Amino acid sequence: MGNEIKNIKNGNICSPKGFIAGSIFAGIKSPGQDKRDIGIIFSETDCVSAGTFTQNSVVSPSVTWTKKVLQDNRLRAVVVNSGCANCAVGEQGFLDAKETAEIASKSLSIDLDSIAVASTGIIGVELPMALMRKFIPQIELSDSDGPGFARSILTTDKRTKEIAVSFDIDGSEITVAGVAKGSGMIHPNMATMLAFITSDISIDENVLKETLSSSVNRSFNQISVDGDQSTNDTVLIMTNGNANNKKITKIEDCDKFLEALDEVCIFLAKEIAKDGEGNTRLIEATVQGAKTEDDARKATKYIVSSNLVKTAVYGRDPNWGRIMMAVGASQIDLDESKIEIFVNDIQIVADGIATPYNHQSVVIAMNQPIIRLTVNLNVGENTAKAWGSELTEEYVVFNSAYTT
Amino acid sequence: MGNEIKNIKNGNICSPKGFIAGSIFAGIKSPGQDKRDIGIIFSETDCVSAGTFTQNSVVSPSVTWTKKVLQDNRLRAVVVNSGCANCAVGEQGFLDAKETAEIASKSLSIDLDSIAVASTGIIGVELPMALMRKFIPQIELSDSDGPGFARSILTTDKRTKEIAVSFDIDGSEITVAGVAKGSGMIHPNMATMLAFITSDISIDENVLKETLSSSVNRSFNQISVDGDQSTNDTVLIMTNGNANNKKITKIEDCDKFLEALDEVCIFLAKEIAKDGEGNTRLIEATVQGAKTEDDARKATKYIVSSNLVKTAVYGRDPNWGRIMMAVGASQIDLDESKIEIFVNDIQIVADGIATPYNHQSVVIAMNQPIIRLTVNLNVGENTAKAWGSELTEEYVVFNSAYTT
Repeated sequence: MGNEIKNIKNGNICSPKGFIAGSIFAGIKSPGQDKRDIGIIFSETDCVSAGTFTQNSVVSPSVTWTKKVLQDNRLRAVVVNSGCANCAVGEQGFLDAKETAEIASKSLSIDLDSIAVASTGIIGVELPMALMRKFIPQIELSDSDGPGFARSILTTDKRTKEIAVSFDIDGSEITVAGVAKGSGMIHPNMATMLAFITSDISIDENVLKETLSSSVNRSFNQISVDGDQSTNDTVLIMTNGNANNKKITKIEDCDKFLEALDEVCIFLAKEIAKDGEGNTRLIEATVQGAKTEDDARKATKYIVSSNLVKTAVYGRDPNWGRIMMAVGASQIDLDESKIEIFVNDIQIVADGIATPYNHQSVVIAMNQPIIRLTVNLNVGENTAKAWGSELTEEYVVFNSAYTT
Repeated sequence: MGNEIKNIKNGNICSPKGFIAGSIFAGIKSPGQDKRDIGIIFSETDCVSAGTFTQNSVVSPSVTWTKKVLQDNRLRAVVVNSGCANCAVGEQGFLDAKETAEIASKSLSIDLDSIAVASTGIIGVELPMALMRKFIPQIELSDSDGPGFARSILTTDKRTKEIAVSFDIDGSEITVAGVAKGSGMIHPNMATMLAFITSDISIDENVLKETLSSSVNRSFNQISVDGDQSTNDTVLIMTNGNANNKKITKIEDCDKFLEALDEVCIFLAKEIAKDGEGNTRLIEATVQGAKTEDDARKATKYIVSSNLVKTAVYGRDPNWGRIMMAVGASQIDLDESKIEIFVNDIQIVADGIATPYNHQSVVIAMNQPIIRLTVNLNVGENTAKAWGSELTEEYVVFNSAYTT
């Protein structure tokens, strides 16, 4: 026993030992009840860290700065602002990202190159450095402000997204925690996904990089809200070793950690997909029986990214033709005559063709808050999942009605 | 002169010498004013032909049949039905595609393997062969039923799409004509794009294949209505040599033909993009100054495919951040600090950052029926264009309200 992964009640990024956080409202975004727009995560000791970033060719200088400091890999803190993406502002962007780290370096008394920065919000507008200079030094760090930090990174998200889980390695309790903001379109310019993960595990840097990348491929890379990738997308993990476990140096020894990391990342990814603008329900696509894991991942991603599937789900329409088409569009290996399709466990396609089902049962199944679309390709042993939002009139109104 | 490309008034697929057509209403789709649902294009002599087809892994057996007969390359006719896609119906699909060709073979008194077939409409439903058997023999061919054929391939399209142009090679008048149906979502299952091109030019088979593929890359492959690729997409060209020009045997000798073919294909592609469901206006994206033509094509395709750009255009919002993001998401070679963006010729971004412009002028520009978004990357000499529809509430309503 003692070896299962436990969910921590009210868990947040301060749950792992040695992490504290703080947040403040500086006025970068418009005011509102209990709003915050600058947040800091701080580790009391040096961390081993890893990150994955947007693949967009246009990148926020905040991302450029953070990639640079990650090379030294002795991160102690991350400073995040919401309301301004610090992107497409010319050379001033990098100067501002660096100055943000400098301000935090002084106020936290740690080295400049141990500080990552991240930004989310409007693009094409310079970071209001006067506010950054005034408010960052006022941020108070404590082990109780994880939830405050979670609020400080939100933009159009309807709710905070945070989680912590723990498990045991040879008597040491390890905690992994995460916080994220959604990829829902940001008023007025773009979608950004940010996620920060903290853990007190002691782990080798290369093993950490490998586990993060593998977890991100199963979680954040498997969601679709509106299909666009932002200039600021960042997933960052900091591990400070405060759990005092025997340092993990081989990928073979971190099954349990990987499982916990998956739980954190998949939870956050699903929360993001659920919180897309104009969105009320979650689509979960599962592809089974694929020749490779990559095939399964690609096919599920196509299903949740298809506007036709998204609108069909919104219309409670068990439109298996659209699901077949999305799977086919992914151009993976398949044998059409072996395909089975299920909507919330009710089979609607067998041997690649429609099978008789009770229409009303399926429509009722499609009224659930989570709509599970399962495709069995029956050509192999691999499975993957992906999550997406519906496409609603509200999405269109939200994203067209605002004029910059 | 006589060497420019002339548009033919009321031109249609019967404009090139030696082509006739016919159409009929068989009841495969629901009846309505002047509806037709089976059509035939017929060449009085053997054709050299070429085709490009859907890349979807799930393919209609009608496509499979047509690919097969194209290998022999002595096409005389194509039989098209709308209302039923003949897809995802198991092995019956291929039998029905073949029988369709057999029926036409008898009624037209030509070889079975000189007949291509194409289908569009609902998937998962078998072709109503009783109707095919009864009505195909009743179709009367003439040189005046090009417009009837154009109607017979429509599904949710609001209007027919047809064009013919002519030019001169060494005293021979060459005509190139085309007809298409849109990729707008087909009630209730999927989007299919069909295009048929006829010409009386005398041309070598391999040169024809190369020109078709190059034209399709600049036209049909550069449009986005809802981003999904259908199981039935087909572009087919038939050339019968009746213009009696000296046979073109080298790609270097067919500049004029390629230009005419581009004119036909780009016209039809734009008509399809304009006719997307819930769509009233056309987005035309141009990327200039790219390092390669492929880069330019990719970037324009990303712009017109982005839900965020589509909704911004619908909202008359000159949201250059979304355009920058779409260009960046294509992961092409670029230098952010050199990017310029124009909306209908009004510059809104210079050196990668917002430039002052009269907001009201841009909003007025965005009220035009065609919204031209132009990006100059300033890193090379290559240009490409792509076309897309807006994303409107009506699209969502249309695609969600119908329950299969």
